[in-house]
Amino acid sequence: MNEIRVFAPATVANVGSGFDVLGFALSDIGDMITVRKTDDLGLHIKNIEGADNLPLDCKKNVSTVAAQALLDSYNNTLDYGFEFELVKKVSAGSGMGSSASSSAAAVMAVNELLGRPYSKTELVVFAMQGESLASGTPHADNVAPSLLGGFTLIQSYDPLRIIPLHYPKDLVATVVHPHIEVKTSDSKRILRQHIPLKTAITQWANLGGLIAGLAQENYELIGHSLKDVVAEPTRSMLIPLYEQVKEMAHKNGALGCNISGSGPSMFMLSQSLDTAHKLADELRVMYSNEQLDCDVYVSKINPDGAILL
Amino acid sequence: MNEIRVFAPATVANVGSGFDVLGFALSDIGDMITVRKTDDLGLHIKNIEGADNLPLDCKKNVSTVAAQALLDSYNNTLDYGFEFELVKKVSAGSGMGSSASSSAAAVMAVNELLGRPYSKTELVVFAMQGESLASGTPHADNVAPSLLGGFTLIQSYDPLRIIPLHYPKDLVATVVHPHIEVKTSDSKRILRQHIPLKTAITQWANLGGLIAGLAQENYELIGHSLKDVVAEPTRSMLIPLYEQVKEMAHKNGALGCNISGSGPSMFMLSQSLDTAHKLADELRVMYSNEQLDCDVYVSKINPDGAILL
Repeated sequence: MNEIRVFAPATVANVGSGFDVLGFALSDIGDMITVRKTDDLGLHIKNIEGADNLPLDCKKNVSTVAAQALLDSYNNTLDYGFEFELVKKVSAGSGMGSSASSSAAAVMAVNELLGRPYSKTELVVFAMQGESLASGTPHADNVAPSLLGGFTLIQSYDPLRIIPLHYPKDLVATVVHPHIEVKTSDSKRILRQHIPLKTAITQWANLGGLIAGLAQENYELIGHSLKDVVAEPTRSMLIPLYEQVKEMAHKNGALGCNISGSGPSMFMLSQSLDTAHKLADELRVMYSNEQLDCDVYVSKINPDGAILL
Repeated sequence: MNEIRVFAPATVANVGSGFDVLGFALSDIGDMITVRKTDDLGLHIKNIEGADNLPLDCKKNVSTVAAQALLDSYNNTLDYGFEFELVKKVSAGSGMGSSASSSAAAVMAVNELLGRPYSKTELVVFAMQGESLASGTPHADNVAPSLLGGFTLIQSYDPLRIIPLHYPKDLVATVVHPHIEVKTSDSKRILRQHIPLKTAITQWANLGGLIAGLAQENYELIGHSLKDVVAEPTRSMLIPLYEQVKEMAHKNGALGCNISGSGPSMFMLSQSLDTAHKLADELRVMYSNEQLDCDVYVSKINPDGAILL
């Protein structure tokens, strides 16, 4: 095999009370990477479609940095190199795991071309190096669901422990990406580094309820438990129409609504596609009324994660 | 029906990473209460067996305070009163939910004599008034599992939301109560009221893993996820042989080991009765070698909670 094409989905991290530990994968929306073996040794980016300002320099692009981490670990001398073509559908800075999609797709593709020396779970640690380049921290809460699909809990980093969670198959996400820029670094800066013990207890009681709700397929419990008392109160201030969107979501049957990643995207969970589409329609109207551009996605939870095309 | 006898089990609260929110019920060990209707109006405590220093004054005993909370809510004029006889098997101050057992048994018994106007779940709020008397806080993390059985998550107090959790039926607890006094107030005082966000995230990642582990019946995950980074590091210092017990538990096949309630009792979880009994034997030897008295219990998780006898 000399050429391979991989799709890796966009993801929602910081899922409400699962701040910094919980993520899930979306369907259809994501990045595609074609990787082919070349006579030139090393890594080369031939083309990037769908994004203007991403570097072609392999040391500065998350996909090749992630791929290089894999090759460094693989540590076999190769008599060929790899050429990358990226088709990006997830906007950088959207809060939908743009860098994670590219990193996940890249390591999955190179792994296949090498004859699959690593499992998907083992690939997470390489994709994390792409995240490290993108945000300064090798976090896994987007790359894990992008590779593995479903809902994943990152329990710890040392050692890296990824817990795939059970969830109801009918769950649907509506995600809106208002076209404004929120820098992850800004979004991090406005979080307090110490929190009241009481607040922390509320958060973990809610996360406990969320994971129990997913496991028990109890939609009321899922919705109630999304409540985030740590990041949302401050981060939501950076997102236009945040409170109005939450109110609309509540009125229109969403189980819950929260920030996707560190924003500005927001996600809503619903029990049916009908509700999810209704929310999407309302979102388009709301942002359009404010002359704000946005992208809106309706997506079942993606059970597969990154796949070969 | 003029007389009823109820058993309500001892409980383990603050289950590792489930600090302040998670509890489970033990089997066999617990308090028994006999309540009978009397011509004298109001509440009366006739006798308390198994504890020397508990008050017979109905305004000062957790069982009658809890029962009175129920009667206040019921708010029907009764032409009879209630006489209580308590048989206590759970030592006050043990960290095994002694006051909760009495409170739970009392409200269950009175509820039956009234013709069961309340569900077991509704009784929790009354039993909490006994906890309020005992510790100054109307917490539910012991009374909920004592009434309902199994593992329960207290998600919030306003409104009171109790989430019964799925758990593997083979799970066995070994609990040791070393005979030293740790006052709940001391145990509370040594907790920091603000914690680093990073510590909080570690805790909720672990609680997430614990609830997923219980739901998935994944014993390795349960054991790994019990780790408590908030309360155990300081509270364990008040418990004799704490580190040695943990090491012994680990060596002898326990899934995990932590403080029961606010101590001084400790609990260990195991996958089999054999392991649980082996741990119990080792515990007896360890404390005996130090000339410390202790009680040791081996118990499957109690699925039923409080029951009529």
